[in-house]
Amino acid sequence: MTGQEKDKAIGVFDSGVGGLTVFRELMELMPEERIVYFGDTARVPYGSKSRETVTDYSRQIIRFLRTQDVKAIVVACNTASAVALDEIEGETDIPIIGVVKPGALAASRVTKNGRIGIIATEATISSGIYEKYLKEIRPQMKIFGKACPLFVPLVEEGWLKDRITEEIAERYLTGLKGCGIDTLVLGCTHYPMLEGAIRQIMGEEVVLVNPAYETARECRAMLMEQGLLSEKGIGPEEKAYHFFVSDAAEKFKSVANMFLPMGIEGAQKIPIEQFAYKSRKGAQHIYDERVQYIHTGS
Amino acid sequence: MTGQEKDKAIGVFDSGVGGLTVFRELMELMPEERIVYFGDTARVPYGSKSRETVTDYSRQIIRFLRTQDVKAIVVACNTASAVALDEIEGETDIPIIGVVKPGALAASRVTKNGRIGIIATEATISSGIYEKYLKEIRPQMKIFGKACPLFVPLVEEGWLKDRITEEIAERYLTGLKGCGIDTLVLGCTHYPMLEGAIRQIMGEEVVLVNPAYETARECRAMLMEQGLLSEKGIGPEEKAYHFFVSDAAEKFKSVANMFLPMGIEGAQKIPIEQFAYKSRKGAQHIYDERVQYIHTGS
Repeated sequence: MTGQEKDKAIGVFDSGVGGLTVFRELMELMPEERIVYFGDTARVPYGSKSRETVTDYSRQIIRFLRTQDVKAIVVACNTASAVALDEIEGETDIPIIGVVKPGALAASRVTKNGRIGIIATEATISSGIYEKYLKEIRPQMKIFGKACPLFVPLVEEGWLKDRITEEIAERYLTGLKGCGIDTLVLGCTHYPMLEGAIRQIMGEEVVLVNPAYETARECRAMLMEQGLLSEKGIGPEEKAYHFFVSDAAEKFKSVANMFLPMGIEGAQKIPIEQFAYKSRKGAQHIYDERVQYIHTGS
Repeated sequence: MTGQEKDKAIGVFDSGVGGLTVFRELMELMPEERIVYFGDTARVPYGSKSRETVTDYSRQIIRFLRTQDVKAIVVACNTASAVALDEIEGETDIPIIGVVKPGALAASRVTKNGRIGIIATEATISSGIYEKYLKEIRPQMKIFGKACPLFVPLVEEGWLKDRITEEIAERYLTGLKGCGIDTLVLGCTHYPMLEGAIRQIMGEEVVLVNPAYETARECRAMLMEQGLLSEKGIGPEEKAYHFFVSDAAEKFKSVANMFLPMGIEGAQKIPIEQFAYKSRKGAQHIYDERVQYIHTGS
């Protein structure tokens, strides 16, 4: 691997701001790596959308990240990891990982009784992907999934330590608590912000797994294995991190400062729909037809 | 106006399913009209997004509706009506109305003490549009706005008559109740589904205004004025209503049956991003450059 290749950035994307929890772990574990982050703030949330749409959106974002010349991609969104990763990893020639496999691996390591709960968006839960990975690791594990669609809007409303949030958590989690799980995966990047309310219902004996840290470790292992770890590091005058969004760059900047240990300078808005496969293919198709016409017609 | 023009459909759009409340009023008030409905289920919700993005999305949808040969357009989404209508109505050559102006008009008619509350999405509230229209009608009116971002996810979760919903309504509305309003505009198409909880906090003496009915009346008046009311009516074998969405057509169908008095046969999924102005212009631009190259290079 050439030095040039190694010193490219890691691309990270999420449906919005939640993936900054993964960004943060990457940054802390690998301070010598450049990172490009994209948050799809125009089309957030992904969790209630179809597999087809989430896959389309993920493709557009990967196409954009490639224009930033990244060496690897981290899908920091549980929903996209759950429903789109299988399809898109076959389409790209640089390494790509999601948060679901590392999250499942972490859960399998901490559980003692083999009973694991998963809380996530509707799309992630109905994909059954955590169960699939966990059963690949150990077939006799018992998996209990629960979609918690109000958790993301509650975080976005900022009601983190709040009686109403606790009541909603109680409604969502009481059933899981009754299943005798000893491990609970926070299968959506927003959920660690509600750790207090979740911990209150689940009790101290249930281990809460946040896949962000495990994902960063997995990413590091993958880069090392492929000889892609940066050797040059970040120069004192260099900008290590770039942030892009599809909407409301100013709002992103202020929310990002809740998630990250440092203030960010700003984010750049990208017209992400212009990276749509269908429309570029369409354009290409129109172009080819017209050229054909020009050639044969003249 | 030719008979052909009059017998075209009315186009209606919303960010998702909520606009079906407007569709229903149109259908009941004008049973002789064809209606084409588009719900932007891939990019829902609009209420937390920027003016620029909501305007872009509205343009794409209008461009799609024009392919369905509609005679007029109803923007059945409060957010799009609030932030995008001013800009897009100058760009289209068929009549177009939103839900905000009719809602404001209805509120101005029912208020006795001139103190009106508006509940809506963040984007609608921060646009200040209800206040602007109401003050145009009567400058001395006092307007009190409150964004209720959890109401839409609560409706989508189906917690309509629920203790938690009541508590959230109480938190959002107690301040408004204290302002001495006698009229409250339900400025988001989802909110009428929470009428019970809202009524409980506001009491019987506050009139709740749902702009859907007024919008349908306004639409009828507009069609009449422009000589565009259908004369032919709907034939016994004809399909009067067509439904299009940008994602999850099956899910839309089942939810639609909650909103409408009749079952719908189905909805058709449209790749709405292909109607993006920028990307079509972009494609054209690429095409023109390449053709140029072929001409000068050969």
